Amino acid sequence: MSSSKWEMQVSTHLEAAWIAVDWGTTRLRAWAMSDSGAVLAGAVSECGMGWLSPPEFEGALLEIISLWLAKGRRTEIVICGMAGARQGWQEAPYRKVPCEPVLPGKQVAVRARDERLDVHIIPGLSQASPPDVMRGEETQLAGLLIAKPGFEGTACFPGTHSKWVTLGAGKVQRFRTFLTGEQFSLLAEHSILRHTVAADGWDKNDFIDAVREAAADPASVPGALFSLRAGPLLGSPPAGNLRSRLSGLLIGAEIGAVVGELGERAIHVVGGGAVAASYATALDALGYKAVSHDAAELTLAGISLARTVQRVTGT
Amino acid sequence: MSSSKWEMQVSTHLEAAWIAVDWGTTRLRAWAMSDSGAVLAGAVSECGMGWLSPPEFEGALLEIISLWLAKGRRTEIVICGMAGARQGWQEAPYRKVPCEPVLPGKQVAVRARDERLDVHIIPGLSQASPPDVMRGEETQLAGLLIAKPGFEGTACFPGTHSKWVTLGAGKVQRFRTFLTGEQFSLLAEHSILRHTVAADGWDKNDFIDAVREAAADPASVPGALFSLRAGPLLGSPPAGNLRSRLSGLLIGAEIGAVVGELGERAIHVVGGGAVAASYATALDALGYKAVSHDAAELTLAGISLARTVQRVTGT
Repeated sequence: MSSSKWEMQVSTHLEAAWIAVDWGTTRLRAWAMSDSGAVLAGAVSECGMGWLSPPEFEGALLEIISLWLAKGRRTEIVICGMAGARQGWQEAPYRKVPCEPVLPGKQVAVRARDERLDVHIIPGLSQASPPDVMRGEETQLAGLLIAKPGFEGTACFPGTHSKWVTLGAGKVQRFRTFLTGEQFSLLAEHSILRHTVAADGWDKNDFIDAVREAAADPASVPGALFSLRAGPLLGSPPAGNLRSRLSGLLIGAEIGAVVGELGERAIHVVGGGAVAASYATALDALGYKAVSHDAAELTLAGISLARTVQRVTGT
Repeated sequence: MSSSKWEMQVSTHLEAAWIAVDWGTTRLRAWAMSDSGAVLAGAVSECGMGWLSPPEFEGALLEIISLWLAKGRRTEIVICGMAGARQGWQEAPYRKVPCEPVLPGKQVAVRARDERLDVHIIPGLSQASPPDVMRGEETQLAGLLIAKPGFEGTACFPGTHSKWVTLGAGKVQRFRTFLTGEQFSLLAEHSILRHTVAADGWDKNDFIDAVREAAADPASVPGALFSLRAGPLLGSPPAGNLRSRLSGLLIGAEIGAVVGELGERAIHVVGGGAVAASYATALDALGYKAVSHDAAELTLAGISLARTVQRVTGT
């Protein structure tokens, strides 16, 4: 996302009509918006939800947005993401799928101490069976439906915990979260594979070969991991770039597990960076059309939708 | 293994006809043997191969066996396990499957500084495709073939890195290593699941349910892990004992991946303790007959076979 056109690091003195906020576990990001929906300024801080206790959220937010607040009126702040978690600023209870990703004007009001703030949090979504939750992606999904009106099909959110979402009839029908990114880090850095999975280097062909193997037979992946240790011990044939192979095996198994739901349509991949590029490469190698979306752009579109119409308070 | 009849912690002054040694990554274990094959004494130390550099092995061994060495003659020491690894005492190059698990009298001689020592290491086994290696289990497999002459079928070695071995015609035909135990520890202690997977407690029914789910559809397991986090967040229905569920999902996926090779025969499970008991429970729940074996007993039988007949020196 660092190359996004929506990314601006400088916080300048200006008056925002309202402020959009994406509050993740590790990072906080805010945009000063005009009445017409233009981005006037952007700011980011490392005060992610994971590092804060509930009373600390307001100060962390003010630190990056106070220069944008008008005098003599409350400025509307609309937040998506982990600030609405139980351990966040204030819990915004999950809405249950199937449902629209975001309900315009129906966010959860937060009581702020600073009178200049009028804060609202967009609720995340939950699924009863199998149990699953999201906070933040629902807003990007609303943005995706604005970018592709009437879209039905699959959206993929690569990351530490990746998500696959099925959209239909304007609603999130179901979704599934995978620990793939976290498992990759644990295996590459903390398991016996760390001895042979180098910290750098990448070979696209090794990645694609592993994706294809794993997607064709996801059940075989647990039994294929130790080969990444044993192969180099035996030395012949050359084992290739094992970091790429490990990534390919895990991502291939993930795609193999969701492949029954993918259908014929293009898969919309939300996010930038190397991980999202790997998912797009993997989908392409398996014969799917991956369409990439800028996450910040979809987030802003979703937050803009969330604030429209009147708003009810309550938790 | 702590309850094994072969386990003796006291090292007393006596004269061993020969000495059997099982040198693992984390532990060293030795037995003083009589000419007739009886165990005279046993000793164990924490000087596993993982903590030693090559020149340190001899001292670590002498520390626990010196009271057993006769004066005026060299005592035969036969070692299985990681002491024969490339980073061990001296490399005992892998023998390639398919092959007999152990060749009597054909071990790799080690040059010791102490003249009382006549040291030999049993080579591990390797498989070219898919790449895999073992060191130690080949000796237990030889012991299994002594306990069950003519056995053909599957042996399972639960542990941090579990192994499934197919025996036929007196040979190791093929085998497969799984990181299941290590993945369980990483997920339970270091991933986001650590928040909901309690460090203790066990529910056999939750374990069995998860084993059955995973074995029936191993490809679904990567997508089922996050439920162990999301389930308790949603609270209804009660999520059960999630440590048992995590273990069941991983072991079930492992068995699901090898199930095509299991056939109708009993599965011989080598090892003691809670992990081996879990594998036996899982196999039983899936309709297989699990036959448990004492690992130390099979190790001693295998080492005893290894020393018979004349010996050639190697590398």
